[in-house]
Amino acid sequence: MDYRILSKIKSPQDIKGLSQKQVEILCGEIRDCIINTVSKNGGHLASNLGSVELTVALHRAFNSPEDEIIFDVGHQCYTHKLLTGRFDKFSSIRQKDGISGYMKPSESEHDPFITGHSSNSISAAYGIFKAKRLKGESGTAVAVIGDGAMTGGMAYEALNNAGNEKGNFIVVLNDNKMSISQNVGAMARALTKMRNKKKYHNFKFAFRRLLLKIPAVGKPLYRAFDAIKDAVKAIVYKKNIFSSLGFNYLGPVDGHDVAAMESLFKIAESYNKPSLIHVITTKGKGYSYAELSPKNYHGVSPFDIEEGANVSDKLNFSAVAGNTLCELAEKDDKICAVTAAMTEGTGLSKFAEKYPERFFDVGIAEQHAVTFSAALAKEGLKPFFAVYSSFLQRGFDQIIHDAAIGNFPLRLLIDRAGIVGEDGETHQGLFDVSYLSSIPNISIYSPSQYDELCYRIKYVAECDGISAVRYPRGCEKPSDFTDFKKDYSVIEGGKRAIVTYGRLFSEAMTAKETIGDISIVKLNKIYPLSDDLIKTVADFDEIYFFEETEKSGGIGEHIGGRLLENGYKGKFTVHAVNDRFVSAAETTESLAECGLDSNSMINILRK
Amino acid sequence: MDYRILSKIKSPQDIKGLSQKQVEILCGEIRDCIINTVSKNGGHLASNLGSVELTVALHRAFNSPEDEIIFDVGHQCYTHKLLTGRFDKFSSIRQKDGISGYMKPSESEHDPFITGHSSNSISAAYGIFKAKRLKGESGTAVAVIGDGAMTGGMAYEALNNAGNEKGNFIVVLNDNKMSISQNVGAMARALTKMRNKKKYHNFKFAFRRLLLKIPAVGKPLYRAFDAIKDAVKAIVYKKNIFSSLGFNYLGPVDGHDVAAMESLFKIAESYNKPSLIHVITTKGKGYSYAELSPKNYHGVSPFDIEEGANVSDKLNFSAVAGNTLCELAEKDDKICAVTAAMTEGTGLSKFAEKYPERFFDVGIAEQHAVTFSAALAKEGLKPFFAVYSSFLQRGFDQIIHDAAIGNFPLRLLIDRAGIVGEDGETHQGLFDVSYLSSIPNISIYSPSQYDELCYRIKYVAECDGISAVRYPRGCEKPSDFTDFKKDYSVIEGGKRAIVTYGRLFSEAMTAKETIGDISIVKLNKIYPLSDDLIKTVADFDEIYFFEETEKSGGIGEHIGGRLLENGYKGKFTVHAVNDRFVSAAETTESLAECGLDSNSMINILRK
Repeated sequence: MDYRILSKIKSPQDIKGLSQKQVEILCGEIRDCIINTVSKNGGHLASNLGSVELTVALHRAFNSPEDEIIFDVGHQCYTHKLLTGRFDKFSSIRQKDGISGYMKPSESEHDPFITGHSSNSISAAYGIFKAKRLKGESGTAVAVIGDGAMTGGMAYEALNNAGNEKGNFIVVLNDNKMSISQNVGAMARALTKMRNKKKYHNFKFAFRRLLLKIPAVGKPLYRAFDAIKDAVKAIVYKKNIFSSLGFNYLGPVDGHDVAAMESLFKIAESYNKPSLIHVITTKGKGYSYAELSPKNYHGVSPFDIEEGANVSDKLNFSAVAGNTLCELAEKDDKICAVTAAMTEGTGLSKFAEKYPERFFDVGIAEQHAVTFSAALAKEGLKPFFAVYSSFLQRGFDQIIHDAAIGNFPLRLLIDRAGIVGEDGETHQGLFDVSYLSSIPNISIYSPSQYDELCYRIKYVAECDGISAVRYPRGCEKPSDFTDFKKDYSVIEGGKRAIVTYGRLFSEAMTAKETIGDISIVKLNKIYPLSDDLIKTVADFDEIYFFEETEKSGGIGEHIGGRLLENGYKGKFTVHAVNDRFVSAAETTESLAECGLDSNSMINILRK
Repeated sequence: MDYRILSKIKSPQDIKGLSQKQVEILCGEIRDCIINTVSKNGGHLASNLGSVELTVALHRAFNSPEDEIIFDVGHQCYTHKLLTGRFDKFSSIRQKDGISGYMKPSESEHDPFITGHSSNSISAAYGIFKAKRLKGESGTAVAVIGDGAMTGGMAYEALNNAGNEKGNFIVVLNDNKMSISQNVGAMARALTKMRNKKKYHNFKFAFRRLLLKIPAVGKPLYRAFDAIKDAVKAIVYKKNIFSSLGFNYLGPVDGHDVAAMESLFKIAESYNKPSLIHVITTKGKGYSYAELSPKNYHGVSPFDIEEGANVSDKLNFSAVAGNTLCELAEKDDKICAVTAAMTEGTGLSKFAEKYPERFFDVGIAEQHAVTFSAALAKEGLKPFFAVYSSFLQRGFDQIIHDAAIGNFPLRLLIDRAGIVGEDGETHQGLFDVSYLSSIPNISIYSPSQYDELCYRIKYVAECDGISAVRYPRGCEKPSDFTDFKKDYSVIEGGKRAIVTYGRLFSEAMTAKETIGDISIVKLNKIYPLSDDLIKTVADFDEIYFFEETEKSGGIGEHIGGRLLENGYKGKFTVHAVNDRFVSAAETTESLAECGLDSNSMINILRK
């Protein structure tokens, strides 16, 4: 496709004058471009295909960047990127030095805020809205949030705060009838009810007919048509959770009908109170494979467009974790699994199917997930909360307050620990080691390979206290190392030692092949550190500590402090991610960039 | 008062047989006991006085501990403590080795979970409920949550998860028409509407009359009276935010009418779906001063019952922070203040009054507060989010994801940093140093005295990046030390040095008076640490690092690691809170117990 219209769009202003017919063609070009690019680079497909018309309507109704539009999570921001001057760079999305797969303010004035973690868009947009008003600026702020993200407590906190607003703050609920996993909470049911109201279609057609008779649809005109507005309001205004919280509820409206959405956005803009516009979209729209099976096309690896993406059944750390839980659950009916809307991502699909009573998908709700799990644990069950490292940051207080103080045996399966690759800054799992290791009553393990992960999960099923087992995204580097059942393992080789854990162990072993005379100390339990370990490590003349986490608060510093307190006089250096965020790139690229791959190790030890 | 009934209550079973008249007397005795005890020990008064009848009704309707009742925040759990075998120990509440001012499972089988931080009760109760069902146990779980706590996103996450439940899970909303600060969110307005429904009184009297005609009020009876239930339901069932989320909404009911509440609790217990019972209580009930001014009687220091509590106008760190913000705001209209329902606690009352447009009380919503503030900052304003250290744990992810990645100049005023005294484990500010110092783009300051706090707040108002200024609860130890404007200060005195920061600086100075030949290095900026500081410290033969935080991830370890990497060969020890939680006691007692007061310093340096 030659993208005749799309290639000429340099800013959102360029789509305002397009005819309805041209808009239709544009949407087709955008879809084609997204499918083509994601098929090459991988990325989020289904949700981006679902929000093409919605994004076009937003940019026709509002004036970005004066009106600031924030797409929650950013799984739905590809069309926005294409319409805001990034068509030329779009082929670099999610690649090293390319454009980000999420909103990124440093990339464009049209990306007002960072959105990689779910449910922050309303808070961010409302802050921006209040700042605009305080500064006496015109324009509004719009949060575009999915039905999945709407289960996050943060979204509710923001709605509660913004519900008393006297200005035209706007929330667009992009309801694609499915969050990442099937959305099982009460909000999902409430939305289903709203969606099914018969008035929906009546309203849509009646209102469109009215509008088609009005030549120009602008703010001043709407002000004049109070009578129409009231009539519309009477039709669309329904009492529900959003109206309870002080929002004008508008919709539901067909999220693939650009004109209908534009009209509602204009109406919302004309109010002197906050509005929530309920937009119904079809995930995967326009690509039949994705429409049929949106779950499998949420986040995809590169694929063949004609044949569709293969659901990978390749073993990875997540799958091993899920399989191990199933194995445990078969023998022990106390084993439970908890997820915050990440059933597939954390490898729990099989568990969910086999043990539905003991499987809990609590929504995008990490705070609740931790406390709910702690309560199950307190009652003598054995809950495993499987969660991505960077998302667990949301449950930090709850780990301390609701699990650790009472010493309830919460088990955390921390997926995507360390460098995650193409998702970039917001998704890197670089903080869990430091924030978890400050918590009393916790034990942290960081397996390097599948059989170790499997062993460790079974091990912590029988432990007291809080247990965290953390493992990287993706696949193991196969190894015949089996000495991982103790707290630490020593591979002798000389008076200089690399001390490390997790995925970097295999990098260290590779480095050892080249260097030869070097010992490796592999930490299997990375926290707390035994006196015995400190003594063992202190026997080396030179200690090179490598870890795939932020240096500050990492295990290297813990060991360094202990060694110094114990009077260690040798050479000691820590190599970790040093006080910075890590951008999108392939994992191997990032490891090299951070000086954590085997080549970096070799260079450092040869100096 | 001689507590004739109360003193005989050894377990909740003992109140089940009491007549209505005896219940009334009991409630009077409980109130008297609470007022007397709090007037001596300090504590939470107004909310506990408001929930006397509610708690009695709960323990009459349910069977604790088989039914597990969780009081959110625990500001309302004193009556519960008195009715569950702790009357004899009640005079020790909030004191060293006494009973806790919050729920504490290690204290009683009637305290099912820890509640010190707001809004976790529904998650905890629902986890317990599901565990009971999985284990095939009878009994239910009840979360008792205030209207303030209901603004927390975590409560919503739990409601959303529990709303699809098919069993008799129960939430009691104790609506005292006011959270800690006046509740300003949309939820508060929604509750006001519900409260004012005329049907309330109609229902209450009609239903009571019905009930009085039934000799025994039990589950089987209720099942038989489906017709009555349906009639009742028709009266009380209203569509609102709770019913939208799948809960049976019952109420509102007078929270000082034991019989009416008991009846509703029994009805809720008989359903096969979750119920929310809306109970209206009067904060401070039964103590005229507290009823008139509940805000001033939320948390109180010891006071004279006849004269009432004095609102302390004594200067403390919180007040200094608030005053400094006012001073800044007068000259700079970009200065904003944000609080998560802690206007008084964080010293912001004056700011709220003087600069209402630039003051934001966002509800008990730390996640939202951080992101909202980051968005204000991104727009060029200068927001200060004033928050207790332990509550900021809730906003950890947002500091990383929404402020630090974009490097938006969020300013954090971290109150109650370090040991907090009588509030105990849940409120200690012992984690902020470790979790904040792992975040890139952050600068952390820890003033020791008022003039330093004042200076530092003005300083960070002009800084880029994320700034955190942390200070302890209570008052300064006056000092004529003025050399606090640099990143660190050295008080020369010999080749041995105490290195410390914050409140412990004055302890160190006191120790120096006794020891004599010792240097003090005072960190004013505690993170990041400059090379210059490391060099300066490395010049000492012996370094004794003292800090009022968890050792793991603290500044001591950061310095230790750096020193060792730089080849330091001297003696180095870190003295901090070592891998443990700290129970309630006076702050001075806790500091001594943790080895952080001047006497401990003297002992360590003299060894």
